[in-house]
Amino acid sequence: MLAEIITIGDEILIGQIVDTNSAYISKELNRVGIQVYQITSVQDEREHILKALEEAKNQADLVLVTGGLGPTKDDITKQTFCEFLGDNLVENPEVKAHIEFLFQKYFHKAPIAANLHQAMVPSTAKILKNIHGTAPGMWMEKDDTVFVSMPGVPYEMKALIKNEVIPEVIKRFNRPHIYHKTLLTYGMGESSIAERIVDWEDALPAHIKLAYLPSLGKVRLRLSSKGGDKEALIKEVDDQMEQLHALVADIAVGYEEETSVTQKIGGLLLKQGRTLSLAESCTGGALAQEITQHAGASAYYRGSIVPYATELKTSILGVDAHLIEEHNVVSIPVAEAMAEQATKVFGSDYAIATTGIAGPSKGDGDDEVGTVCIAIATPDRMISEKFQFGKARERVIKKSVNKAFEMLLKEISKN
Amino acid sequence: MLAEIITIGDEILIGQIVDTNSAYISKELNRVGIQVYQITSVQDEREHILKALEEAKNQADLVLVTGGLGPTKDDITKQTFCEFLGDNLVENPEVKAHIEFLFQKYFHKAPIAANLHQAMVPSTAKILKNIHGTAPGMWMEKDDTVFVSMPGVPYEMKALIKNEVIPEVIKRFNRPHIYHKTLLTYGMGESSIAERIVDWEDALPAHIKLAYLPSLGKVRLRLSSKGGDKEALIKEVDDQMEQLHALVADIAVGYEEETSVTQKIGGLLLKQGRTLSLAESCTGGALAQEITQHAGASAYYRGSIVPYATELKTSILGVDAHLIEEHNVVSIPVAEAMAEQATKVFGSDYAIATTGIAGPSKGDGDDEVGTVCIAIATPDRMISEKFQFGKARERVIKKSVNKAFEMLLKEISKN
Repeated sequence: MLAEIITIGDEILIGQIVDTNSAYISKELNRVGIQVYQITSVQDEREHILKALEEAKNQADLVLVTGGLGPTKDDITKQTFCEFLGDNLVENPEVKAHIEFLFQKYFHKAPIAANLHQAMVPSTAKILKNIHGTAPGMWMEKDDTVFVSMPGVPYEMKALIKNEVIPEVIKRFNRPHIYHKTLLTYGMGESSIAERIVDWEDALPAHIKLAYLPSLGKVRLRLSSKGGDKEALIKEVDDQMEQLHALVADIAVGYEEETSVTQKIGGLLLKQGRTLSLAESCTGGALAQEITQHAGASAYYRGSIVPYATELKTSILGVDAHLIEEHNVVSIPVAEAMAEQATKVFGSDYAIATTGIAGPSKGDGDDEVGTVCIAIATPDRMISEKFQFGKARERVIKKSVNKAFEMLLKEISKN
Repeated sequence: MLAEIITIGDEILIGQIVDTNSAYISKELNRVGIQVYQITSVQDEREHILKALEEAKNQADLVLVTGGLGPTKDDITKQTFCEFLGDNLVENPEVKAHIEFLFQKYFHKAPIAANLHQAMVPSTAKILKNIHGTAPGMWMEKDDTVFVSMPGVPYEMKALIKNEVIPEVIKRFNRPHIYHKTLLTYGMGESSIAERIVDWEDALPAHIKLAYLPSLGKVRLRLSSKGGDKEALIKEVDDQMEQLHALVADIAVGYEEETSVTQKIGGLLLKQGRTLSLAESCTGGALAQEITQHAGASAYYRGSIVPYATELKTSILGVDAHLIEEHNVVSIPVAEAMAEQATKVFGSDYAIATTGIAGPSKGDGDDEVGTVCIAIATPDRMISEKFQFGKARERVIKKSVNKAFEMLLKEISKN
């Protein structure tokens, strides 16, 4: 049972947008035991789409296609599917009624001809309702391969996958179980880890796959397997993971779950009835943005200050100006004072403070680009550390964010 | 002259990471006149990689491959390239010296065997120096198609593309010019736009392509063309764009350039010698994060407050508590007071304030999920507006961010 994803649209091929849809679809398919064999991005062009569909038919049982379903002339997916299937477009009355309903509701007017054309679908297609938009999802078949066509607009596609596609897929296909477990490690390179675990890795059964995923100071070790017996599958991978964990216990910081680090932080704060605030200088809002992307963050997140200009660390956050003068704005004492002040100003139990030089040019003070101080204020104590995160701005910010949340999670987990 | 991108790695196919590399590579290739025909993500698996390389060879002149170059056993790209090329691995002394140099510099020790194995490269490969890492870039050829293999780590890949690959590609290939111009519109659906411009679109020469790119309240209209004569190409597309612009002047908000909206805002503030601060409630740091991702932001960005909890709008930002009681926390008067206070607290010329209910549950007050008030304080006046951005949290935040920067840019552009 293999799936493929085809994204249609020049915007991906000219780099105008990043394809986030495919990662979402892959994750959802994996969750229900379907392996994605390949992801292919093709142009808005008839021959190219036909070629991709034909190839996918020969190597997959399920092909999920996004894009090219809009009401304008550059959208040619439906006509091309008709050609591929030897079918023709017919008007679907339910889709038509849904389009009229959406126009009435949001624009208080009747749809124009181009919108009503979105109710034209291949005659053999089963319609999957797109609650958020006018272009329906379509379930089609050719030579035992199922093709699902969906709009490329992320929130429309996501609702279709969740509410329509996955339930149909579960009914239609016999699927094995797929199980991944990922161990998070910090502070050692992948080759050194590999050297340390070589005996265990060599003895790993062939049907369990180990992957090393290095990124900015951390290496994730992922074990993957699939099979018919879910319980046995999980047990076998978990057993292997336990052995692996014992080999790297000193650098392991936990398992990567469906939940992200910030979700874990949120869950723990909620459970403890405690709150968080942020004083972000060099991370400039990136910490707050990660915290507040989660629904319900207002229950534990009090707020934050981004005192980007040096003097604001004093005027808004209340850090002693002499401290900055004496120790430099990028220093452990200043980071600690920022965290301390944040807990006071916001009345929070925990606070993260960051101060550093993200670069590329040097800021106020003498420090090198990439120097970052992070402090975590907790109800019991203060921890802090000074880092050197390299010269690339994007990387310095990202590494600071990763490290800050890692430090905070460690502290919260103790309580 | 066509290129293809192949990404190797199960992490993309199981949805563990989003493939941002391909968008970067596509953009850089487009810039030097190379069209990307297809992007393909394949598994860490010998047959699959061979199949993808073979297909790419038949349809492209240049194939850029990322991933699978690490020092661990799941990294099989080099061996597979040898098989594909009928070549074998030999040790490259310069790469070996570079690996030893990096280990000495960063870890103060000698590399282990697995790392030194990264100095083994196909004998016919030309080495492209990876300044940030141990896995070299490799330039290989088969039957007149060029294959470039690069590590998948984004910052290593980016430096390789910029410093090594693009210069070589420019030397090697005759390339046409590719020119895109994108007009940004707000407030009208793509089908209504299409209806309005139908006569102009029908008369558009076949070699100029129009694309409609709708996303959360805005539609981007992109014209693309390629050709040998750069001047003529640009002139022709610009002329067509001028006609298009005249047809949609009431909804057009400018051209999408290489520079993003926040870069434009930064550029104008810098030119005017003016500063910005933010008071973000429902956007929770997302505005700050976009502003501070740009190098040099500290010259015009003073800082921000995220008063996530209602009472902090009063205690930290100094918004009158009676105002909140009287009008509700999500209201025009409160948004305006937040913006006003931000200019005072931060001593900035401009400020953006957001207050709203991102959802999914209702917050303090009576407002529906999706209600957002945005205010922009400028040196001369205050503008503000109340919006309804739907029910999906991610979308409410994203739409608020887009709208806030749009409103700010309009105001700054007047000065």
